Amino acid sequence: MTTRIVELRRGILKKNDELAAGLRGRFTSAGVLVLNLVSSPGTGKTAFLERTLTALRAKGAKVAALVGDLETDNDARRLASSGAPVRQINTHGICHLDAEMIEKHLTGWPDVPGVNPATLAGLDFLFIENVGNLVCPSSYDLGEKIRVALLSVTEGEDKPLKYPTLFNSADAAVITKIDIAEPCGFDRDLALKNINEIRPGIRIFETSAKTGAGMDEWLQYLADQRSAR
Amino acid sequence: MTTRIVELRRGILKKNDELAAGLRGRFTSAGVLVLNLVSSPGTGKTAFLERTLTALRAKGAKVAALVGDLETDNDARRLASSGAPVRQINTHGICHLDAEMIEKHLTGWPDVPGVNPATLAGLDFLFIENVGNLVCPSSYDLGEKIRVALLSVTEGEDKPLKYPTLFNSADAAVITKIDIAEPCGFDRDLALKNINEIRPGIRIFETSAKTGAGMDEWLQYLADQRSAR
Repeated sequence: MTTRIVELRRGILKKNDELAAGLRGRFTSAGVLVLNLVSSPGTGKTAFLERTLTALRAKGAKVAALVGDLETDNDARRLASSGAPVRQINTHGICHLDAEMIEKHLTGWPDVPGVNPATLAGLDFLFIENVGNLVCPSSYDLGEKIRVALLSVTEGEDKPLKYPTLFNSADAAVITKIDIAEPCGFDRDLALKNINEIRPGIRIFETSAKTGAGMDEWLQYLADQRSAR
Repeated sequence: MTTRIVELRRGILKKNDELAAGLRGRFTSAGVLVLNLVSSPGTGKTAFLERTLTALRAKGAKVAALVGDLETDNDARRLASSGAPVRQINTHGICHLDAEMIEKHLTGWPDVPGVNPATLAGLDFLFIENVGNLVCPSSYDLGEKIRVALLSVTEGEDKPLKYPTLFNSADAAVITKIDIAEPCGFDRDLALKNINEIRPGIRIFETSAKTGAGMDEWLQYLADQRSAR
């Protein structure tokens, strides 16, 4: 049974990789920078992304978001308050997004002036908020340029060691909720050491969606990454 | 591909259910109350369990724990500081425990006076700390009597709505980290409402492993459940 599962899983991941490669080509042609945000449930992906979308829109960037959850459209409604077009993907029991789900939800966007709804040409950034899960999303390429692993100060500094695949496959790490680092007894040095142990030299942002701390550095990184395409 | 996966998954879950039924019979014969603790990564399962094990041992109960993680034996080492025998299960990429993993780790316990290491007879409580994940552990019966869903005040009050399968299959809910409820802006009424919406009437404990708040009610519940076997 286990051997069959391993073989079948390999086949699924291979098919997903092929689809993701196709998506990556489409995103590159359209000139849109795509990011895939992965973390535990409750790390604060949605709050962080809401603040990011609002700030980017204020700077005149054209942004959109896809958000994955097993159930509810709570997160899409929260993100839509930024004014950006947002589509909810309900996975109904599946613990991660895959490339096929992304492909299916790339059409049907609301009209955004200057953006071609079919090709996404004219869009600057597309953010994908993954299902809250530190395990399975690590294995599914969504065609993103940048994979972001998020970790809140409430979660324990050893998460990178316990979930190495995610942190090892990430391009950037974001520590969230630093406004409550003190009451949580967060050990900053240990967290940074553990992230660097799994992914040496990875760019790390220390942020609070509540106070805005660290957001300037994050937004500068986004602008740099977009220029570097 | 999807149909094959669904069929194979059904077969795996059926096999797991059969194994779990066998385990449940063994646990009942041995007179040990088994609990399965499920939550996000970072909810504080280990801290809560460490406090629980220490308190139960102080009352003279015989307790043991199995703890699942993808990698590292950090949690087993933390739990062992309670003085209770603890075994780490490393799943190496699998995002949940299953009945087969539990069965394999039921032998080889260190000597506990008054406990039969082969049958576990004489043991009062066996706690299983699942892999941090709100999705997949919901589908895998481990032969436990009581499934406990944990949720921290830092995670957002809508988690029960977004992960209904876990909360719906739980016998008790534990809210953790209530000592930092205020800086986190935790909306207690909303959290209780959401848990009750998914699982009406479920017993809910509001706890802090740091201050000990709520632990007396939790320990009384454990004692009652053990008497009720």
